Amino acid sequence: MAAASFSLSNPATALRRSTTTTPQTPPPISTLSLKPTSTPSSRAVVHRRVSATRRRSAISASAAVEAAIEKADATVVDKSVNTIRFLAIDAVEKANSGHPGLPMGCAPMGHVLYDEIMRYNPKNPYWFNRDRFVLSAGHGCMLHYALLHLAGYDSVKEEDLKQFRQWGSRTPGHPENFETPGIEVTTGPLGQGIANAVGLALAEKHLAARFNKPDAEIVDHYTYCIIGDGCNMEGIANEACSLAGHWGLGKLIAFYDDNHISIDGDTEIAFTESVDKRFEALGWHTIWVKNGNTGYDEIRAAIQEAKAVTDRPTLIKVTTTIGFGSPNKANSYSVHGAALGAKEVEATRQNLGWPHEPFHVPEDVKKHWSRHTPEGAALEAEWNAKFSAYEKKYPEDAAELKSIADGVLPAGWEKALPTYTPEIPADATRNLSQTCLNALAPVLPGLIGGSADLASSNMTLMKTFGDFQKNTPEERNVRFGVREHGMGAICNGIALHSPGFVPYCATFFVFTDYMRGAMRISALSEAGVIYVMTHDSIGLGEDGPTHQPIEHLASFRAMPNILMLRPADGNETAGAYKVAVESRKRPSVLALSRQKLPNLPGTSIEGVAKGGYTISDNSTGNKPDVILIGTGSELEIAAKAADDLRKDGKTVRVVSFVSWELFDEQSDEYKESVLPANVTARVSIEAGTTFGWGKIVGSKGKAIGIDKFGASAPAGKIYKEYGITKEAVIAAANEVC
Amino acid sequence: MAAASFSLSNPATALRRSTTTTPQTPPPISTLSLKPTSTPSSRAVVHRRVSATRRRSAISASAAVEAAIEKADATVVDKSVNTIRFLAIDAVEKANSGHPGLPMGCAPMGHVLYDEIMRYNPKNPYWFNRDRFVLSAGHGCMLHYALLHLAGYDSVKEEDLKQFRQWGSRTPGHPENFETPGIEVTTGPLGQGIANAVGLALAEKHLAARFNKPDAEIVDHYTYCIIGDGCNMEGIANEACSLAGHWGLGKLIAFYDDNHISIDGDTEIAFTESVDKRFEALGWHTIWVKNGNTGYDEIRAAIQEAKAVTDRPTLIKVTTTIGFGSPNKANSYSVHGAALGAKEVEATRQNLGWPHEPFHVPEDVKKHWSRHTPEGAALEAEWNAKFSAYEKKYPEDAAELKSIADGVLPAGWEKALPTYTPEIPADATRNLSQTCLNALAPVLPGLIGGSADLASSNMTLMKTFGDFQKNTPEERNVRFGVREHGMGAICNGIALHSPGFVPYCATFFVFTDYMRGAMRISALSEAGVIYVMTHDSIGLGEDGPTHQPIEHLASFRAMPNILMLRPADGNETAGAYKVAVESRKRPSVLALSRQKLPNLPGTSIEGVAKGGYTISDNSTGNKPDVILIGTGSELEIAAKAADDLRKDGKTVRVVSFVSWELFDEQSDEYKESVLPANVTARVSIEAGTTFGWGKIVGSKGKAIGIDKFGASAPAGKIYKEYGITKEAVIAAANEVC
Repeated sequence: MAAASFSLSNPATALRRSTTTTPQTPPPISTLSLKPTSTPSSRAVVHRRVSATRRRSAISASAAVEAAIEKADATVVDKSVNTIRFLAIDAVEKANSGHPGLPMGCAPMGHVLYDEIMRYNPKNPYWFNRDRFVLSAGHGCMLHYALLHLAGYDSVKEEDLKQFRQWGSRTPGHPENFETPGIEVTTGPLGQGIANAVGLALAEKHLAARFNKPDAEIVDHYTYCIIGDGCNMEGIANEACSLAGHWGLGKLIAFYDDNHISIDGDTEIAFTESVDKRFEALGWHTIWVKNGNTGYDEIRAAIQEAKAVTDRPTLIKVTTTIGFGSPNKANSYSVHGAALGAKEVEATRQNLGWPHEPFHVPEDVKKHWSRHTPEGAALEAEWNAKFSAYEKKYPEDAAELKSIADGVLPAGWEKALPTYTPEIPADATRNLSQTCLNALAPVLPGLIGGSADLASSNMTLMKTFGDFQKNTPEERNVRFGVREHGMGAICNGIALHSPGFVPYCATFFVFTDYMRGAMRISALSEAGVIYVMTHDSIGLGEDGPTHQPIEHLASFRAMPNILMLRPADGNETAGAYKVAVESRKRPSVLALSRQKLPNLPGTSIEGVAKGGYTISDNSTGNKPDVILIGTGSELEIAAKAADDLRKDGKTVRVVSFVSWELFDEQSDEYKESVLPANVTARVSIEAGTTFGWGKIVGSKGKAIGIDKFGASAPAGKIYKEYGITKEAVIAAANEVC
Repeated sequence: MAAASFSLSNPATALRRSTTTTPQTPPPISTLSLKPTSTPSSRAVVHRRVSATRRRSAISASAAVEAAIEKADATVVDKSVNTIRFLAIDAVEKANSGHPGLPMGCAPMGHVLYDEIMRYNPKNPYWFNRDRFVLSAGHGCMLHYALLHLAGYDSVKEEDLKQFRQWGSRTPGHPENFETPGIEVTTGPLGQGIANAVGLALAEKHLAARFNKPDAEIVDHYTYCIIGDGCNMEGIANEACSLAGHWGLGKLIAFYDDNHISIDGDTEIAFTESVDKRFEALGWHTIWVKNGNTGYDEIRAAIQEAKAVTDRPTLIKVTTTIGFGSPNKANSYSVHGAALGAKEVEATRQNLGWPHEPFHVPEDVKKHWSRHTPEGAALEAEWNAKFSAYEKKYPEDAAELKSIADGVLPAGWEKALPTYTPEIPADATRNLSQTCLNALAPVLPGLIGGSADLASSNMTLMKTFGDFQKNTPEERNVRFGVREHGMGAICNGIALHSPGFVPYCATFFVFTDYMRGAMRISALSEAGVIYVMTHDSIGLGEDGPTHQPIEHLASFRAMPNILMLRPADGNETAGAYKVAVESRKRPSVLALSRQKLPNLPGTSIEGVAKGGYTISDNSTGNKPDVILIGTGSELEIAAKAADDLRKDGKTVRVVSFVSWELFDEQSDEYKESVLPANVTARVSIEAGTTFGWGKIVGSKGKAIGIDKFGASAPAGKIYKEYGITKEAVIAAANEVC
């Protein structure tokens, strides 16, 4: 991970705030079509178009650069936009795979954003205070790669564009933050990106409220996003956008690429709702740019208007033509997801007057964009200077912010975690989880999170903080409402905003089914979200099979790069938090009980870190008669069965198998010390599917579990009826040894 | 499954259409607060309140019943509503578990629906043309149980109410269609119910358009639904409701229980969007009933208005008080999900003037509701008579409709499935799937379905049909848009509308993550939906890891009551469809390839039905040197490896393991004949996680698979880099034997 760079990265380009720019007469607003708005002040702003030149001048790095910008005229903008289009066309053509339609239609808004509006440093994609951009319609990633290329990011050189969608390249088929510096999040599965963007904007609003001072606006960036028709059909997008409206995320500006085409054809066949009216209902400000293909001024004015509306996020509906410029394929689904083909590429070159070879960037376009490198360095330098002053004046705040921005957790944070002895009364692991969260809240500056309307069941409130709300964004308890999928994706956005964020979110374990799309993206995009999943088995009782997870433990154990942890008591819950907080690039799922569980002898924080470990054993020489293996609430049952078996003269080892993934990562020697190959008498017990346990207990062992749906009844009754009992363990043990 | 009853169930109560009712003066509209509407005609209707008595009279069964209804005055309505409230209070109190708040608030709308509006036959809950009711806010199921009890359903007797949430009862903690006749679908997980209701309404609209004649309106029922704030926050609800608006489902009427309370407190903390405005944006008609607690006339008028709007679904926002009547807990989250407690129950009895013992239904209330048994029988009898006439006049249509309503598939339908020989050129199983769908379309009257905007990738269009759309509802290709979760739940609704529906839906396999909530409900609620999931591995190539399933096969193998099928070629794809169509009470997931696969020697439709079977073997005595096991696209690799190994003198068996669940269900003898216990040299290959394979290959075998995320590159390259190759199988085989 590149540093967020709190030191001056290039003192030579230190910012000189220009005040000498020649004022320009604002051009008339010609084609911008405004939707009625209830914010009169925002209307006024539109009529004061701030030209790209003027805006840039405020942060320009040198007179030479300024001069270059002054010369930037409509021609170079057109050329730049066509460069973006053809880089996309050419890369897709070379790969013979990809999505040229969106980049061709969205090139104008992409150009305006990256060339005129956004503040970033191409040489440090991780600069903390950069504007964030998310291409939620991730299939159009060549748009983003082309923009990063023009802007001077080292991650996307010409050879990278030529390797689009090839093995080992930095330009994969959908945007992946872990492959390409400059890409903020991982999109592609529709709707994730806009929800990530809500998370990024939440993070900004939170940090700004928490750390900015009247004399130091140290956190101050926008989050931009492009969403398509597909994103807008997805429920996750509605969930996240409802929250964005509720929270009043005024610095979130989303462009809706309104091109009327989805894969199956015209959106008329499945998508006839009024999108802008829906966003207004969600509390957003909306603007309609009718000519997104060439209406640069409309786009610019819309962005200015959006910025002027500070109490609400803005949706800029930009009507575009998918595949703009392609004479025979534009405005049809055929340009969405396949190469144009040599003939149509040629026709498009003719049509747009583009005589250049594939992948060519004209010199004047190159020159025009070249200013972003010095400007970006200057922006970061200016900010670094600002931060230095801030640090002197507000050392404690600065240290907290630094920890969040750099991802270095405060030394010794883990000492805050509680430990337990068997004398301490039984408690539900969901309650023990709350104890951990509240122990960590004061020592982890980046801990922030909440529940999908189940805070009082998931036990996730941090008692020392209030609610993150529109007017109290400095607080850290987030109220997600009943929106699991949006919640997960928002947490991904928070996690990927800054590496020191430790976002957590909560619901009943069974409802991971509602957010699995986001959880997989956590795993893939290395977002260390902590999923606090309570009510983790039939042990929840009367709510019945719709609420009782059966297959969920297995389904996450099968997912790459995610830790499935099922702690059994107080020590193991603390151990699970230790692992989860440390795992900033691997999400964790904590399965927690609704019902009370005793603190067992032998459990430990250290044991959890190994995934599987012995909690009790009356054998010698690593050769017990039988090994009983349990997780979570069933470890107690295994322990009790062991007591009885030992009374009968057996030597019994009890193993807590709290995290299969962590156990897998241990040395062969360690694994042999816990599960010796020559002890084939093994019994596992877990109130969930036996799927996957075959490998652990072996062909001579026995897995006790539940391979059907649960039932509505008091928990104790279901456990008995389903045979998740001490008696069943003893019987199985006697059978196998 | 009780029959849809196409014979007269009770000729003695044959309908006499009454025309003698005394006309009543419509009372003034006092408290109904109407939202502005763009349908002037619907406004007029409101002023013509049709009283319960008048409406009922049109279908009343006998003079005696009519007389009873005439006497029904405001007192009995109030008493009936309080009966509903106290049945809920008492059942939750006795169970000391459950959700009394919603039933107490929604009792008035529940009463009006079940006592005055809905057409049903309590003695045959499966009567085909019944109105459907879905309690999407399923936690409030005591409302529904109380209504079924009063209406005379045999499934909910007094003793059932007393067994609320107990082991083996018919009144589980959330509504479950498979436990309680009268419950249409399984709700509880929020948002599923409203999406199911959209499916039920789609089914009605489709069947009505397809089978009704100018002289015979044989399909004609409404779908009613109660949704809460929770449902309305869920993305799935927005997806489904967007489609309902698009399709113009005029006979879908949803009540929004607007009580401002969710589990975490006032909805103000997370849900401040304008719900009615959003529904208007989705193309719904909206009405606001401001007094849902006692405003019976407002509720009645709203329903009449909703019925008058035939081109759009209607949302009736009913503002209620959660826990209405409880002096100390009403209007707070404390009444949402816990028993009131003896003291508060007593206070509520005092407050509402309810002197009765727990579970008491006053005689006049009983008497008032008693008419529903004869009326229901009469309704069904009338319909049966109508159907008899229809059958005579339109025998072919009648046979098709009967097949859908009764769930008896036409004899010999499976003969339509294609078979293949190895000479037939290789093809992708997604294409072979399309061949099957098109072969089945003419022979399965209930086949209906489509894709989430990937029809041309999933290959799911039935070529002989057009699109199910607002104005062409008789067609059978459904365009779901990019709404996976809504799609799955809508298909559940279709499946549970009538047992002969064979709904299918499609997307990329990886996006099952978006619809897993609905798929689990398919499995639990015995809805035989066919999930056509293409692009089932890294074999999809360049789209990269966001689109490449890894853990998905395992995650469905772990789920109860769902068939995971991964066919390898033409015969197996046909076999998978045979199994899936036959499995009307168990959903099927078909994992299909994007890439071409050869037709292998030895595959068969019959083999698929056994889940695992030998496709080739050069050994004798059931003792090959090694068993190679593959699924789907990797079966070819196993077969090729076997060829090479045999050339090296080995005896090799190749097993197709197309469905683990089906194999598990075979006899021990059969299983031993395929995977003999004493042959421990086993190698499996599958382009997905190895999780779960340990049990199949055993501790001495080897599982070849992928336990990390995929990559963006051409498919062949990824297969090679990930070691999913013939060479890897041969090496592993040589290692294990």
